[in-house]
Amino acid sequence: MKDLSSFFRPKSVALVGATEKSGWSAATYANLISNAFPGDVFLLNPKGAVVHGVQTFASFADVPGQVDLAYVMTPIDAVIPVMEAGARQGVRNYVVLTSGYGEVGAEGAAKERELVDFAAANDLIVLGPNGNGFINATDSITPYGLPIPKPLLAGSVGVVLQSGALASSVLSFAHARSIGLSFLTSMGNESIISVTDVVAHLVDDPQTKCIALFLESIRYPDEFIAVAQAARDAGKPIVALKIGRSAKASRTAQAHTGALVGDDRTVDAVFEQLGILRVASVEDLLTTASLLAEVGPLPGRRLGVVTPSGGASEIISDRAMDEGLDLVDFAEQTTAKLVEILPDFASANNPLDVTGYVLLDRTLLGRAMEVVVADPGVDVTMLLSELPRAVPPDMDGAVEMWRANAARIEQASTPVVAVSTCLTDINEVGREIRERSGFPLVLGGIEHAMTAIGNAVRYPELVRTAGEPPIPPLAQLNAIDAERTGVWGEQRSAEQLRRAGVPVVPAELVDSADEAVRAADAVGYPVVLKIAGDEIAHKSDIGGVRLALADADAVRTAYDEMLAAVQVAGVKSRTVLVQPMRPLGTELLVGVVRDPVWGLTLAIALGGVWVELMDDSVLRVLPVSAASIRGALEKLRGIDALKGARGAQPVDLDALVEVIGRVVALAQALGEELESLEINPLRVSGGEIEALDALITWR
Amino acid sequence: MKDLSSFFRPKSVALVGATEKSGWSAATYANLISNAFPGDVFLLNPKGAVVHGVQTFASFADVPGQVDLAYVMTPIDAVIPVMEAGARQGVRNYVVLTSGYGEVGAEGAAKERELVDFAAANDLIVLGPNGNGFINATDSITPYGLPIPKPLLAGSVGVVLQSGALASSVLSFAHARSIGLSFLTSMGNESIISVTDVVAHLVDDPQTKCIALFLESIRYPDEFIAVAQAARDAGKPIVALKIGRSAKASRTAQAHTGALVGDDRTVDAVFEQLGILRVASVEDLLTTASLLAEVGPLPGRRLGVVTPSGGASEIISDRAMDEGLDLVDFAEQTTAKLVEILPDFASANNPLDVTGYVLLDRTLLGRAMEVVVADPGVDVTMLLSELPRAVPPDMDGAVEMWRANAARIEQASTPVVAVSTCLTDINEVGREIRERSGFPLVLGGIEHAMTAIGNAVRYPELVRTAGEPPIPPLAQLNAIDAERTGVWGEQRSAEQLRRAGVPVVPAELVDSADEAVRAADAVGYPVVLKIAGDEIAHKSDIGGVRLALADADAVRTAYDEMLAAVQVAGVKSRTVLVQPMRPLGTELLVGVVRDPVWGLTLAIALGGVWVELMDDSVLRVLPVSAASIRGALEKLRGIDALKGARGAQPVDLDALVEVIGRVVALAQALGEELESLEINPLRVSGGEIEALDALITWR
Repeated sequence: MKDLSSFFRPKSVALVGATEKSGWSAATYANLISNAFPGDVFLLNPKGAVVHGVQTFASFADVPGQVDLAYVMTPIDAVIPVMEAGARQGVRNYVVLTSGYGEVGAEGAAKERELVDFAAANDLIVLGPNGNGFINATDSITPYGLPIPKPLLAGSVGVVLQSGALASSVLSFAHARSIGLSFLTSMGNESIISVTDVVAHLVDDPQTKCIALFLESIRYPDEFIAVAQAARDAGKPIVALKIGRSAKASRTAQAHTGALVGDDRTVDAVFEQLGILRVASVEDLLTTASLLAEVGPLPGRRLGVVTPSGGASEIISDRAMDEGLDLVDFAEQTTAKLVEILPDFASANNPLDVTGYVLLDRTLLGRAMEVVVADPGVDVTMLLSELPRAVPPDMDGAVEMWRANAARIEQASTPVVAVSTCLTDINEVGREIRERSGFPLVLGGIEHAMTAIGNAVRYPELVRTAGEPPIPPLAQLNAIDAERTGVWGEQRSAEQLRRAGVPVVPAELVDSADEAVRAADAVGYPVVLKIAGDEIAHKSDIGGVRLALADADAVRTAYDEMLAAVQVAGVKSRTVLVQPMRPLGTELLVGVVRDPVWGLTLAIALGGVWVELMDDSVLRVLPVSAASIRGALEKLRGIDALKGARGAQPVDLDALVEVIGRVVALAQALGEELESLEINPLRVSGGEIEALDALITWR
Repeated sequence: MKDLSSFFRPKSVALVGATEKSGWSAATYANLISNAFPGDVFLLNPKGAVVHGVQTFASFADVPGQVDLAYVMTPIDAVIPVMEAGARQGVRNYVVLTSGYGEVGAEGAAKERELVDFAAANDLIVLGPNGNGFINATDSITPYGLPIPKPLLAGSVGVVLQSGALASSVLSFAHARSIGLSFLTSMGNESIISVTDVVAHLVDDPQTKCIALFLESIRYPDEFIAVAQAARDAGKPIVALKIGRSAKASRTAQAHTGALVGDDRTVDAVFEQLGILRVASVEDLLTTASLLAEVGPLPGRRLGVVTPSGGASEIISDRAMDEGLDLVDFAEQTTAKLVEILPDFASANNPLDVTGYVLLDRTLLGRAMEVVVADPGVDVTMLLSELPRAVPPDMDGAVEMWRANAARIEQASTPVVAVSTCLTDINEVGREIRERSGFPLVLGGIEHAMTAIGNAVRYPELVRTAGEPPIPPLAQLNAIDAERTGVWGEQRSAEQLRRAGVPVVPAELVDSADEAVRAADAVGYPVVLKIAGDEIAHKSDIGGVRLALADADAVRTAYDEMLAAVQVAGVKSRTVLVQPMRPLGTELLVGVVRDPVWGLTLAIALGGVWVELMDDSVLRVLPVSAASIRGALEKLRGIDALKGARGAQPVDLDALVEVIGRVVALAQALGEELESLEINPLRVSGGEIEALDALITWR
């Protein structure tokens, strides 16, 4: 990936195509000047006129000094000539705002290729085209084409967007909530610099503590995985608003697994495995990112809550449940100290409502918080704190109170997250109080703050699992000697699984009713008959499965009926599998299918015939660790069925993870031709784990 | 319920206990004066001093005029003496701000009872105690004890809260988003005036178009149902933030149904049946309520979307999916007209991104919207519209553009909902533009706006179903002659259901292995044996159920093994039910159980043994209409299993609703002693519907 550290820190900027007629030109110039760009700004205009009150230069050659970055706003046909002229003068870095490239169709795409080729040939770096530039807030460098709300607050959230218009919403929201950004860029067409390049830059940027992404698509999955791992290693959480949840899922026809794997659900799995926190709104993107950047990842799920409102406490309780947070009972000494502090009619419970008595004693909330943060059972304290929106009668006194609470938060041994009840702006009054008192971040509104706290608690858990060693491909693949095309039937698929150490139900192939009876007598009644042969995917749908055959007569009749039934569906085979009928157990689907973007993907679903209806499934993209498989199992809604709900014998989950791991190892060893490998059902009952049916499909 | 129309429209207010020392006193007086209370404000203080710059009166007797409402802020022991003095002067209406009553414990509760008794004896009406008063924004009457953000915008959302502190958050949020309120009150202890009284008042209040509630508990379920029905009849939607989602569910021990019914899930069902829209945050409460109040319920799910941003369009697509909204394809003539208007590189799709070209032509968004609202397939149009947050260079031109769009919205034949991308304040710039242009409501942020649009579309659907006639109790109850206590076993319960017209699997009671074999021979193999007798709830848990017995030997063995097994569990009965074993079908649980607050509640769950694990269930509080039962079935996640997924024969849903209706009619006829009545499973397969097991529990 490209080193962009000098690209994003130019000492001089030339605005090429500066003109009074363009709002972009005016905004970019105003942004640089009003945010005190610490270097030279040159305006280039072929006529050399005065623009924005400044004398322009006709060309790079006329500029009295070195140009570190050219911000190009010319008509499209002038862009390459500008870059030619710039290259001659040693200008290597370009932002191209000009649009009309790949985003407008084939003709534009050709122009974009021309631009890319020219840049490559001349060793130039380009952000865009069709992008608005960037905001390096840390260094007050703002070559950016849309208005930036004032004041621009420098901070520690780095933002990268695959959208220009949304960048303005991000800037508005950050401004409204006083969230400081280190950096922001909207990528434009990513013709040369890509999202992953910028993320890699932010991983290295010391001012950036958390990276917030708006993603429409992930262009380079391998690079994406690499930068996500680098961010994790650097301790910089990534929060992503990735759209496309509503896109139609891609489906693989043969295996049930195909129906469980979709573009977007796979993205969920990849993000979880990489430790990326996915959110659904711009509000959550910035609320979560600011919490992670300014307070940091949170150490545990045990939440202490301090509020001046019973109603708000109860809303927090409900939302804490949604986020899986634990409103622990306070320790005895905490309760005792709170009783000393609180008015008689208040209850020293978690969540704590110190009551409207705060109106009489404004130190009450802070003193109560000080007690709660010291509770040994509390990992994180949430402090409901309303920054005033109108000038309070006693501004100095108010500032003093906020300063005292800021000091308490600073000194606390566990993190404190300040939150307002509703999401409204921190207006000029609140901004002044924070500036004067040094009070830290206040998250906007319980609703989004609880999502953020849930995310910040989840992050270290994801990182821990992501660090576990992945299961390697099967070292010694004892592969079946058969052509790797089309669909392998149950017998062949099951045999391949058996060789990989996966327990499979015994089965005998027969070609007549007599043989079927003989085989059934041998395995013991009741038995199951299944039509055999490759290229038959959904046997039961065509009458190719008969269960619970109790005796020889039943087997004989079933054999004949089955052959008649499958013939209707065009199946000519007379070969049938005879298997012992297993007693009822819990049934899982375990499959590996190839996702077009992310490659082999493991799906685990609960429910046998209910798989599709209940949609109780989890995905993991390979490679995957045993710990991650175990975590996936725990996410099944029906996990209690495995753990022994209602007196059933609990399944040996360690053994189950081991078996699924063998499936994964096999799939990875089968190589590039594998399309999908599926066990459905995998019967689990106590310590018994056995594949009852299997299917391998080749690409 | 009480007529509060004069209570909430006093022509004069006395502040009793006015003092410089109290923030409440200062705030209440300031609120009345600064919001231009259109009548006399008298301050009462026993010392008759000057307070807040005004001469006070020592007692009601000294006040030169009639007092319509007394706002009481005195110490607790002075409250009843104040009311005595007031009553003598004909003062009938009181707001009691004073706290220290029921909310602080037993001693306070005694004082509250005293207050209630005194008020009742003297025909006085009290809001509170421990309440902050009310804001009648329509008439500028604001006897309210906490600061009200300025300017107070009068509008059409009526707000009632069971929380004092949250009222301030509601006022802040409404102010931040320029949402006009007709009325707001925080109830305090509801000792005399209750939430339902105030809701009834708002149903009659012509200025209130939508009612927003914050509820901690529902004190009077019958009154609540009555006012909700009145609101529905008046066409005034109720939106409720009801907390307690995280409260532990109440469980009824014997029936599975008990585990499906919980306090909070029942509240969900009641709200849905009453047409009340439940939300989880203050943001959603006011966003949904303002949409319903100012734009109204929305006529259908087909949404047209017009934006200037591709990124925002995609976020909207994802959220539209969540809300079940349908982003229809535009009609041919719509596409043709859009192509004329849009720049070449824009696509005329829904959601529509008119592109950043709006920066060059600011009429573009409005003209595109005008085309989309005329599309015959679009029920509602969403217009993404950002009110500026900084003064635009050409303010008059901006106002003109907003005025033109306001006119287009006004003239549109279908509703238009304007939405900003993010939830930030409409600040003074946005307020000025709205005032000057007459631009309507702008919902705050895609995230909350989509929830609001989903709710406003759902409302007319809920109202339609709520208007359907309920199933009456069984007219001719042919009740079993047995004592109505404890648990009735399967045989007796099934017989009661059979008499009510519910199809039940045939069964024979036997007392020995020989009899069991004879019965099995008669009904035909395979058969099922079940231990019989009352007071045995979970038969299968104790080994009291044996399935798929294929022949006489199997029956004989199973009989003996079963008796041995159940004996271990303390069951001494030797009586066993013999039933034919039905082939696999889809299994439902259908039960009616008594909820402690809402009475008999119907639960329908899918899944047989999966019922509890999958938690795929729906509730309806009785009485209930057939249409509502049908609607409930459609909400099951696994509804496709009933509709014939994967080639299975579809279930006759009309017949199923009919059978469930008979269960409901029976439960209603069994009267007050019934605790629960449950069929588990009810087997459904094509047109076959048959109860395979049943259980009746008495209170």
